[in-house]
Amino acid sequence: DFERALGEVQPAFGASTDMFERCRLNGIISPGEKHEKLHHTCRALVEQVRVSPKTPMLTCLLEGAAGSGKTALAATLAIGSEFPFTKLVSADTMVGQSEMGKCQALAKVFEDAYKSPLSLIVLDDIERLLEYVAIGPRFSNVVLQALLILLKRQPPEGKKLLVIGTTSLPHVFEDMGLTATFNVSLHCPLLGGEEGKKVLSQIGAFEPHELDAAVALLDEQTPIKKLFMLLEMARHGGGGGGGGDGDAEDGGKIPLERWIACMEDLHG
Amino acid sequence: DFERALGEVQPAFGASTDMFERCRLNGIISPGEKHEKLHHTCRALVEQVRVSPKTPMLTCLLEGAAGSGKTALAATLAIGSEFPFTKLVSADTMVGQSEMGKCQALAKVFEDAYKSPLSLIVLDDIERLLEYVAIGPRFSNVVLQALLILLKRQPPEGKKLLVIGTTSLPHVFEDMGLTATFNVSLHCPLLGGEEGKKVLSQIGAFEPHELDAAVALLDEQTPIKKLFMLLEMARHGGGGGGGGDGDAEDGGKIPLERWIACMEDLHG
Amino acid sequence: DFERALGEVQPAFGASTDMFERCRLNGIISPGEKHEKLHHTCRALVEQVRVSPKTPMLTCLLEGAAGSGKTALAATLAIGSEFPFTKLVSADTMVGQSEMGKCQALAKVFEDAYKSPLSLIVLDDIERLLEYVAIGPRFSNVVLQALLILLKRQPPEGKKLLVIGTTSLPHVFEDMGLTATFNVSLHCPLLGGEEGKKVLSQIGAFEPHELDAAVALLDEQTPIKKLFMLLEMARHGGGGGGGGDGDAEDGGKIPLERWIACMEDLHG
Amino acid sequence: DFERALGEVQPAFGASTDMFERCRLNGIISPGEKHEKLHHTCRALVEQVRVSPKTPMLTCLLEGAAGSGKTALAATLAIGSEFPFTKLVSADTMVGQSEMGKCQALAKVFEDAYKSPLSLIVLDDIERLLEYVAIGPRFSNVVLQALLILLKRQPPEGKKLLVIGTTSLPHVFEDMGLTATFNVSLHCPLLGGEEGKKVLSQIGAFEPHELDAAVALLDEQTPIKKLFMLLEMARHGGGGGGGGDGDAEDGGKIPLERWIACMEDLHG
Amino acid sequence: DFERALGEVQPAFGASTDMFERCRLNGIISPGEKHEKLHHTCRALVEQVRVSPKTPMLTCLLEGAAGSGKTALAATLAIGSEFPFTKLVSADTMVGQSEMGKCQALAKVFEDAYKSPLSLIVLDDIERLLEYVAIGPRFSNVVLQALLILLKRQPPEGKKLLVIGTTSLPHVFEDMGLTATFNVSLHCPLLGGEEGKKVLSQIGAFEPHELDAAVALLDEQTPIKKLFMLLEMARHGGGGGGGGDGDAEDGGKIPLERWIACMEDLHG
Amino acid sequence: DFERALGEVQPAFGASTDMFERCRLNGIISPGEKHEKLHHTCRALVEQVRVSPKTPMLTCLLEGAAGSGKTALAATLAIGSEFPFTKLVSADTMVGQSEMGKCQALAKVFEDAYKSPLSLIVLDDIERLLEYVAIGPRFSNVVLQALLILLKRQPPEGKKLLVIGTTSLPHVFEDMGLTATFNVSLHCPLLGGEEGKKVLSQIGAFEPHELDAAVALLDEQTPIKKLFMLLEMARHGGGGGGGGDGDAEDGGKIPLERWIACMEDLHG
Ligand SMILES: Nc1ncnc2c1ncn2[C@@H]1O[C@H](COP(=O)(O)OP(=O)(O)OP(=O)(O)O)[C@@H](O)[C@H]1O
Ligand SMILES: Nc1ncnc2c1ncn2[C@@H]1O[C@H](COP(=O)(O)OP(=O)(O)OP(=O)(O)O)[C@@H](O)[C@H]1O
Ligand SMILES: Nc1ncnc2c1ncn2[C@@H]1O[C@H](COP(=O)(O)OP(=O)(O)OP(=O)(O)O)[C@@H](O)[C@H]1O
Ligand SMILES: Nc1ncnc2c1ncn2[C@@H]1O[C@H](COP(=O)(O)OP(=O)(O)OP(=O)(O)O)[C@@H](O)[C@H]1O
Ligand SMILES: Nc1ncnc2c1ncn2[C@@H]1O[C@H](COP(=O)(O)OP(=O)(O)OP(=O)(O)O)[C@@H](O)[C@H]1O
Ligand SMILES: Nc1ncnc2c1ncn2[C@@H]1O[C@H](COP(=O)(O)OP(=O)(O)OP(=O)(O)O)[C@@H](O)[C@H]1O
Ligand SMILES: [Mg+2]
Ligand SMILES: [Mg+2]
Ligand SMILES: [Mg+2]
Ligand SMILES: [Mg+2]
Ligand SMILES: [Mg+2]
Ligand SMILES: [Mg+2]
Repeated sequence: DFERALGEVQPAFGASTDMFERCRLNGIISPGEKHEKLHHTCRALVEQVRVSPKTPMLTCLLEGAAGSGKTALAATLAIGSEFPFTKLVSADTMVGQSEMGKCQALAKVFEDAYKSPLSLIVLDDIERLLEYVAIGPRFSNVVLQALLILLKRQPPEGKKLLVIGTTSLPHVFEDMGLTATFNVSLHCPLLGGEEGKKVLSQIGAFEPHELDAAVALLDEQTPIKKLFMLLEMARHGGGGGGGGDGDAEDGGKIPLERWIACMEDLHG
Repeated sequence: DFERALGEVQPAFGASTDMFERCRLNGIISPGEKHEKLHHTCRALVEQVRVSPKTPMLTCLLEGAAGSGKTALAATLAIGSEFPFTKLVSADTMVGQSEMGKCQALAKVFEDAYKSPLSLIVLDDIERLLEYVAIGPRFSNVVLQALLILLKRQPPEGKKLLVIGTTSLPHVFEDMGLTATFNVSLHCPLLGGEEGKKVLSQIGAFEPHELDAAVALLDEQTPIKKLFMLLEMARHGGGGGGGGDGDAEDGGKIPLERWIACMEDLHG
Repeated sequence: DFERALGEVQPAFGASTDMFERCRLNGIISPGEKHEKLHHTCRALVEQVRVSPKTPMLTCLLEGAAGSGKTALAATLAIGSEFPFTKLVSADTMVGQSEMGKCQALAKVFEDAYKSPLSLIVLDDIERLLEYVAIGPRFSNVVLQALLILLKRQPPEGKKLLVIGTTSLPHVFEDMGLTATFNVSLHCPLLGGEEGKKVLSQIGAFEPHELDAAVALLDEQTPIKKLFMLLEMARHGGGGGGGGDGDAEDGGKIPLERWIACMEDLHG
Repeated sequence: DFERALGEVQPAFGASTDMFERCRLNGIISPGEKHEKLHHTCRALVEQVRVSPKTPMLTCLLEGAAGSGKTALAATLAIGSEFPFTKLVSADTMVGQSEMGKCQALAKVFEDAYKSPLSLIVLDDIERLLEYVAIGPRFSNVVLQALLILLKRQPPEGKKLLVIGTTSLPHVFEDMGLTATFNVSLHCPLLGGEEGKKVLSQIGAFEPHELDAAVALLDEQTPIKKLFMLLEMARHGGGGGGGGDGDAEDGGKIPLERWIACMEDLHG
Repeated sequence: DFERALGEVQPAFGASTDMFERCRLNGIISPGEKHEKLHHTCRALVEQVRVSPKTPMLTCLLEGAAGSGKTALAATLAIGSEFPFTKLVSADTMVGQSEMGKCQALAKVFEDAYKSPLSLIVLDDIERLLEYVAIGPRFSNVVLQALLILLKRQPPEGKKLLVIGTTSLPHVFEDMGLTATFNVSLHCPLLGGEEGKKVLSQIGAFEPHELDAAVALLDEQTPIKKLFMLLEMARHGGGGGGGGDGDAEDGGKIPLERWIACMEDLHG
Repeated sequence: DFERALGEVQPAFGASTDMFERCRLNGIISPGEKHEKLHHTCRALVEQVRVSPKTPMLTCLLEGAAGSGKTALAATLAIGSEFPFTKLVSADTMVGQSEMGKCQALAKVFEDAYKSPLSLIVLDDIERLLEYVAIGPRFSNVVLQALLILLKRQPPEGKKLLVIGTTSLPHVFEDMGLTATFNVSLHCPLLGGEEGKKVLSQIGAFEPHELDAAVALLDEQTPIKKLFMLLEMARHGGGGGGGGDGDAEDGGKIPLERWIACMEDLHG
């Protein structure tokens, strides 16, 4: 199914797809059944928007720990949807913008989407759009209220819209009334031991006989993003001198001692 | 009585009725006695405003869980009232508007209503007009105070006004003094098992012999809005591959396995 | 005494008296001794301001539950005072006005009053002037401070001023220092069973033999405002079909079943 | 000593003394020893500023319950001081003024005082200058900081300044650091039974044989301001019909029944 | 050592020294060993800045109860330092100034200091610069942040700077991170019994045989500032009639009865 | 390794390196193994950014007590990196700047970095950039949100960026979500007894036979910054008269009695 997901990817039109592509630079690997089921359910939602005459709008929240792969999943769905209008909305381009400015930008994206018969909007890292911080807590209620309205407002007759939001703060979102406003809320899991092993074996990071020892050093639940970072550190930096020519070649196997030394540097 | 309610619907004049019609796209189905009594009481209030010389103004709050059908009921009452002035006030058209702007818009609607001998205003989702969020909590006190005044201010001599508000936050509204400001407060119930069954059977979603099994998968109390969404998912999307041609035909029966798979995807 | 109070009413000059008249559209009925004593005390304060050379200013707060008749009482006193300057100050005309604007409007009313040898100002629903809400709580401290000063500031030599304020939040007003700033604070009681009966019998709402049964359905303590509303509902709307021609004639007796059905609709 | 205090009063120059005179319209009566000692201590402070070469500035806070006579005392001191510059600063003339405006007005008064060799400033009801309210609590920190600085800043060489502040919130002032900023803090007592009796007998409000009965109806501790108000009510208004010609003549004795009826009206 | 400190005082240049002189109008008296050690340590810091090539900047906080003599000590150090640039920064000249204005004024003082090879800045009563009040608490975070930066920023190469701050709120300053930002924090003690006696005897306030009785009336810990004020009151004002000619001559002895009466007036 | 670190330092280009040099005026001394390991890990991160094709961006937080040497370490890494773009961002140049101004300045630094193939940004004392104070707590959420975005935003294709942040508030940073946003978080330790001794012996501050006695007076955990300050005080100021010529010569040994006297002055 994962293969199929990737095979299906047929960019609708340029710029937007590029932005989504940048969200999944490591490609997409299947870490196991839980992840496959999640992908499957998501694709079914895309399908429902495409075909159901009674579903002018569907809103889905992807929640999961930092680095669990939410953005990569949303991007994969956007690319795979082949909808004529797809849009990534993130705070990246809004540093220091005013609350009102953000609201207008959000409203503009939805208005643009209403012009296409079939649209998909990704609201990535909604806590950043909301300028949320746990101390206080503080956040932009102006932006929150705009989202609460936009997520409930029906598109004009004959138009269809799928909204995918991502967050690592599901409990906060419940208190904000955001979770209840999304039609569906789905959980992005971390990698357990078995799943971590499957990922490491697929990318061939270690010699097969060292794989189990390497996996044993991981936390019980690891974000896939952190796993990729640790591999790069072990390959090029920490845990063994850091000199230029001592590097494990890119794509080559990582010696177990290096992996051990690297893990110690960071956690010890 | 439900039939009668629908039969009575005779739009007063164009645009406004269209907006109300969009709030009840699924038609109106009777889920049982509790709902019928609620409809009956509401229609009696409309009647009182129409005929009582000593009731220049009446204000009624519809409160109930998200998706319980508050907006659809208010819209049905507005359409059925045949009042010369009916108006839907919601935050949909106010994204990112200032507090003062909202107040002026609200005051304007009431001023407009005062010009008609018989008027009905629906204040839909009042928590959104108030920009309410439970964290803090925060809300626009400026808009709240405007509402508290407008809901108590008598229309000019000889004019009559019915205001119907909706909310899913009855306890918050009590703390705000809003509930006490409305003359009447009525509760919109969720669907219990029997009521869910009655709805499913009326729309013929399942083969009669599978109906009980289908109902058994529902929560004990289901919002009618969520029930309609689940049916669409089972029909077109989740729980069975999501391919185009495998869809249950629109209006056709939903196979029980599909229903089961769909429920699992979302709650499992 | 009540009769006398009404008989005394001799409007000073047009507009202002009209506004006060609109506050007591149902006429004034005596529900019993407690209310008569309250009226009596209030009229004595009016008298004191008129005659005492050592009382240039007197301020009196009427506090009581919502709908207990505070505004109607204040209006009756204003009309009965026959003072050359009487003024009703309420938030009705201040929707969405700024705090500063409200302060200036308040100060203006007092300045105007200082020009008349004998003046009476009604500050109705002071909590609305203050934009008070219990959540927080929040209110306009700017307006509160203006009131605290205006209520203590002596009128110019030779001028006399009576200020009557109304509120349903006596405890909040104590915390705000408002209660202590008023010279006198008087309580507006709700209707107990005997008092409710006396009102119902005076207006002849029920057949005498059904009166006790009708009273028995009331809460132990009822606001007079709510009682009038319930009577209108039973007469014209709820509790029996709501059809046009089935209405109890205006002024006619209300059938007991209709009263029962109406009470059930709202509380059941 | 009280007599002497009054005899001493020789207004420095017009306007300012008039304002102080208005603060003690009822004249000054001696309610007993505690009050005399307080007056004596205050006059000693005035004296110290006048003669001590090492006391360029002295600041004294008069604190006591509402209506205990603080403002009247401060005014009496100002008039009796015969200082070339005396000034009453109160919020009366600052309704709705901005925080900054208040600061500038305060600074201006001090600058003016610095120009006179001997000055006395009364800061009356400082909590009103601070826009203080117990809910929150809220107050203008801008004005507070200005006061904290002005109360500690030395006048220019050769100039002398006495500042007398009044407040009924001594505990709040301690938390604000205001009490510690004043050099001296003195307490204005309420009237106990004996003191109330002495006041009533001096003004001859009752027939001598009814005096004890009249005093017995007072609270254990009464503000002198309230006592004067109650006397006026009993004389002209409450407790006996309120008709015009039934009034106790001004200056005449108050019949005991009227006193009793009046007390009942207000507290009963 | 104290004598030496005073003898050393050689004003650098006019205006600034005058301001410092006004902070110690009573001269400087040695109340005992604790105070001498404090003075000694402070002078050592001045010395370190003058001579150490590795100490471009030193910051020292003087903390102690109100009136303990912090400002007088700081002024004495500034005068005694003979640094070419000395500056007293206090809120006295900033009444009602904006937060930004204060920041700019502070930054300006530091920039000015950077131009002199050897500079000393006294930040007097830092809580007032911060507009601190314990209720809330509230303070200007803008000014605080400016101070936190300025106190840590190194002067330009070759320039040297000593900053002396004073406060009576050491615990608040710890919570604000200010104490940790100063290199050194020193405590200004109050006067215990022995120290009070030494001061009184040095200035010859009482007849020797009455000295012990006079000291016995003091609190266990007295601020030196308050002691001087009490002496002035006993000499010229409170505790004995306040008449003009009865004053204890300036510089003459205070009769014990007057001291006793004065203490009673204020604390009794 | 420490030697190597210093030897490696080859300034990239003028101004920026100068600023970094000023952060480590005392040179860099190795206090022991813990510090060496920390330096090693940091240099490995620099190496990873230089060589890994899959690491376009790496963010590292250095946290440790005040004065533990964080800024000196970050500066050493920046100088040693030899990256074409290195930049020190601190609040020093932002006194009294607005929140928005700070955001723009931050965004500008990142945009500048994106233009260089290999960049290193030091965000020094991030709590000051955030205007953080523990009372409240208060901080600029606008600046925080900008940082949270900038620290997660990928540089453009082909560009590489290392960000090193410093803070002494690791727990606050966790609550703010900052710690989780950095890829790596490393701890800067204080000096224990052994480490203090090693530093004192390397710089030859005491006669060898007095070294242990000198070390014994230190706290169990000392910030290296404080250690250098204490040495300067003992050498030039506190603990022995402070006269000019009595100073221990710069670079000469510190007599033990002086060290003892100095420690007593400050802590006693
Ligand atoms: N299934 C997958 N196969 C391969 N790589 C993946 C997969 N899922 C995520 N990644 C990679 O992991 C990295 C981080 O994932 P991503 O940014 O989507 O996580 P996230 O949950 O959005 O993180 P954050 O909470 O920080 O926003 C990306 O480089 C992405 O390509
Ligand atoms: N009695 C009914 N018969 C048929 N459909 C109904 C009925 N009541 C509600 N619906 C349908 O359910 C859907 C949602 O109902 P509605 O929006 O009125 O709920 P709500 O309580 O206002 O929800 P929310 O709390 O989200 O505002 C609408 O599509 C509406 O047409
Ligand atoms: N004594 C009375 N006799 C007859 N009608 C009365 C009497 N008192 C009040 N009413 C009527 O009751 C209604 C409501 O009373 P009113 O508005 O004065 O109450 P209120 O206490 O001011 O209410 P609220 O708290 O809502 O401001 C009015 O229509 C008024 O005419
Ligand atoms: N000793 C006195 N003899 C006669 N009348 C007095 C005396 N003290 C006060 N009064 C009168 O009592 C009245 C109120 O006193 P005053 O306003 O000074 O009290 P206050 O403590 O300032 O009150 P508030 O707390 O309301 O400001 C004034 O009319 C004043 O003339
Ligand atoms: N050692 C001393 N010898 C003589 N007079 C002193 C001495 N110390 C302080 N004083 C005098 O005491 C008075 C108050 O001291 P100062 O203002 O320095 O105290 P402070 O601690 O700054 O007070 P505050 O907390 O109010 O700012 C001044 O008049 C000063 O001259
Ligand atoms: N390893 C070292 N060898 C020699 N000197 C050092 C070393 N580390 C730090 N220092 C010196 O200690 C002083 C303070 O260190 P630095 O300012 O880096 O500490 P910090 O942790 O950033 O302090 P703060 O928390 O106040 O910002 C500097 O003068 C620096 O040169
Ligand atoms: Mg993401
Ligand atoms: Mg709704
Ligand atoms: Mg009212
Ligand atoms: Mg007063
Ligand atoms: Mg001081
Ligand atoms: Mg640092």
